[in-house]
Amino acid sequence: MNKQELVELFEDTFPFWNKLSESDKETFMRSSQHVHFKKGTNIHDGNECTGVILIKSGSLRLYLLSEDGKEVTLYRLFPGDMCMLSASCVLENITFDVFVDSEENSECIVVGGCAYEDIARRIPEAKIFTLEVALSRFSDVMWVMQQILFMSMDKRLAIFLLDEAANASSDTVKLTHEQIAKYMGSAREVVSRMLKYFASEGIISYSRSDGIKILDKRRLRDLTR
Amino acid sequence: MNKQELVELFEDTFPFWNKLSESDKETFMRSSQHVHFKKGTNIHDGNECTGVILIKSGSLRLYLLSEDGKEVTLYRLFPGDMCMLSASCVLENITFDVFVDSEENSECIVVGGCAYEDIARRIPEAKIFTLEVALSRFSDVMWVMQQILFMSMDKRLAIFLLDEAANASSDTVKLTHEQIAKYMGSAREVVSRMLKYFASEGIISYSRSDGIKILDKRRLRDLTR
Repeated sequence: MNKQELVELFEDTFPFWNKLSESDKETFMRSSQHVHFKKGTNIHDGNECTGVILIKSGSLRLYLLSEDGKEVTLYRLFPGDMCMLSASCVLENITFDVFVDSEENSECIVVGGCAYEDIARRIPEAKIFTLEVALSRFSDVMWVMQQILFMSMDKRLAIFLLDEAANASSDTVKLTHEQIAKYMGSAREVVSRMLKYFASEGIISYSRSDGIKILDKRRLRDLTR
Repeated sequence: MNKQELVELFEDTFPFWNKLSESDKETFMRSSQHVHFKKGTNIHDGNECTGVILIKSGSLRLYLLSEDGKEVTLYRLFPGDMCMLSASCVLENITFDVFVDSEENSECIVVGGCAYEDIARRIPEAKIFTLEVALSRFSDVMWVMQQILFMSMDKRLAIFLLDEAANASSDTVKLTHEQIAKYMGSAREVVSRMLKYFASEGIISYSRSDGIKILDKRRLRDLTR
């Protein structure tokens, strides 16, 4: 990625870009790194300030992790999205730890937290943008929370499978029961039991080698209502 | 509350107050109401824009409500706190519905959402303050979520009882099992079973008339670790 491409990316991504002085722009660019993350890499583990991550290709997963290793997926980020919660030093009001993994081979631009923070502190437009991006994820997380707290398992699993299929542009979901349980913050046994029920109803089929195939999308959609 | 007292309250509460023009201050004050809410009143039900609520006395409870009536308490607000999530028109990034009840007889100042929004849109300091207040609650909610998802029931109940006792400056928690279950997003049976266990261990005692009395605070604290 050459300098011109990086400038264009920043212009498109940060509405405050044109409020920056030339020297701020220089610092911002110098503090940015073009990084390729292998599928399955842990990118941020809640402690240090990893910086603001722009996703160019691939996908990242943000999740909570309990002391005993239980995970709950909060949301995923796709090309064009931005990960703000990984910039702990920018968001001093955020006191919880999130973990970020690359779910596929992912190409990202990571803007250094210190350089970003320095600008957000001085330029109100940058501060407002930053807070708004972070706050918009609040709603995503509340949605997940409401699903987990209030929704029945069949409905949650139906929504999950339809989302996965849509993201992959395929009728097949290539995840193990264990992985699905992890993403849904549930137990493998619970997921397996529900998948077995879906299969017995002819809604899906599954095998170890091929993953989960959606056979009757209409009925799966009915379950989400 | 006279005009001078209201001005002083706003000066103390809103760090952007002195950035406002005299005419903005006037509008802000005219759009504000001094309201007394009876214990148990529903103040905000997620739909309309109730406005920004400053708590002068009493306490408010924010919670999620499922379609079938299940509640999960997100956090409570006490004198000096501010409720920003009830001003839906100010926070366009917040797309989930919260409910707000007064838990005690509460005295509040409610600043009209439209007047507030108009100022937050024009004055960057006001916008930044608003977003920061809202975002700081994100962390509270994540804490609740992690408790519910990851923590064992004995630990959660121990924390709940200690918090309640501290808030009431008393060793007695005057809540029914049903109410505790509601606040914790759990079932009454689960709470009753755990309270019975705590009582059998001599940690608490309880009765219908007197509520729950903490007998051994040290052991209750040990449970929270």
